[in-house]
Amino acid sequence: MSDYTVTSLNKVVRGPKRATYDVETIHKILDDTFLCHIGYQWNEQVVVIPTAYGRSGETLYIHGSRKNRMLLALLENGKASVSVTHLDGLVLARSAFHHSANYRSATIFGNVREVVDINEKTKAMECLLNHMVPGHWDNIRQPNEKEFKSTLMLAIDIETAAAKIRAEGVIDEKEDHDLPIWAGIVPITQNMHTPIVDPLVPETISVPVSVQNIITK
Amino acid sequence: MSDYTVTSLNKVVRGPKRATYDVETIHKILDDTFLCHIGYQWNEQVVVIPTAYGRSGETLYIHGSRKNRMLLALLENGKASVSVTHLDGLVLARSAFHHSANYRSATIFGNVREVVDINEKTKAMECLLNHMVPGHWDNIRQPNEKEFKSTLMLAIDIETAAAKIRAEGVIDEKEDHDLPIWAGIVPITQNMHTPIVDPLVPETISVPVSVQNIITK
Repeated sequence: MSDYTVTSLNKVVRGPKRATYDVETIHKILDDTFLCHIGYQWNEQVVVIPTAYGRSGETLYIHGSRKNRMLLALLENGKASVSVTHLDGLVLARSAFHHSANYRSATIFGNVREVVDINEKTKAMECLLNHMVPGHWDNIRQPNEKEFKSTLMLAIDIETAAAKIRAEGVIDEKEDHDLPIWAGIVPITQNMHTPIVDPLVPETISVPVSVQNIITK
Repeated sequence: MSDYTVTSLNKVVRGPKRATYDVETIHKILDDTFLCHIGYQWNEQVVVIPTAYGRSGETLYIHGSRKNRMLLALLENGKASVSVTHLDGLVLARSAFHHSANYRSATIFGNVREVVDINEKTKAMECLLNHMVPGHWDNIRQPNEKEFKSTLMLAIDIETAAAKIRAEGVIDEKEDHDLPIWAGIVPITQNMHTPIVDPLVPETISVPVSVQNIITK
């Protein structure tokens, strides 16, 4: 078990009891989804955009068109802050003040570079796809030269990170416990449903195991 | 039907066919969840943090402790970029290149001010809570003076906004259609489950209708 370095940048000041810098915990938060929000600076204004990512060790990969404004701004700036959030529940307290959410949230700070090495870029494409659907890379048509060249692939090498996790019940003021007010948790999950097959796929081709595996049971 | 002003800041350059600036469409995206990601600048670095919000007309409200670094930085900067994303499905194409997601994503650009007027601040607290659970404000203990004063409430008055929506099937290269590869959409939903009642709530108090209404049927 090891921790990310705590600096003034990633130190959680509000609610430090819910903070963790544990590498394994943060990797798990990153691996449980593939959608992140990235901030970048454009003309003195901060802009936040959602995008897909993959993780390989201490590197996150993001990609897009060679003209993508966010990717180009990140590359120019050299630094990126990536936020990954799982919403696990609503915390409905007796008092308005103690309403909250259960969540797992990771903030990553990293250094940005373009992936130019052909081997790393191929591996990064595989990583992004398999992060979305584990093992699916081997089932599909892999990029041809034109597609490969037209993709701008960025690596965000994790410099440090922090996570905040709330995973508990309602916390109300003691003097509110006797109020005739309902309180509780509403659990939230993200569900993946039975696939809608593309109408051009012949009936002889069945849903691959890799896809079956991600469907919520 | 009216549109947000299109400037170089919010103009969608990549995939413009999926872009919309329609006020009503963007309001709907904002009202379908209560979790947003906000970017702010801190020591020359962009930081992205998830937080809850409420919407009232052309204003978003966010709140927290008076010592919250993000809120203080946003207030000092006077500008905010807010991203709200719904992930609606995985688009699993025959080719790696055409893998995508179905989503509804809104990016809001606004001017930040502290809400100091007591009436607006009370309405903002109600807005935030009712945005999470419509109508629930009337069921709970509303803030006392100490709670009211210790809350820093910010208004983000929307200056302009843009949304991108992908809501369609697999788009593959024509020459890939005959490949023996499965393709399809995996629909994704966020589900709210039966509440876990706080153990201190007496059996005589039942789940309020406001809470029952948000549970996924």
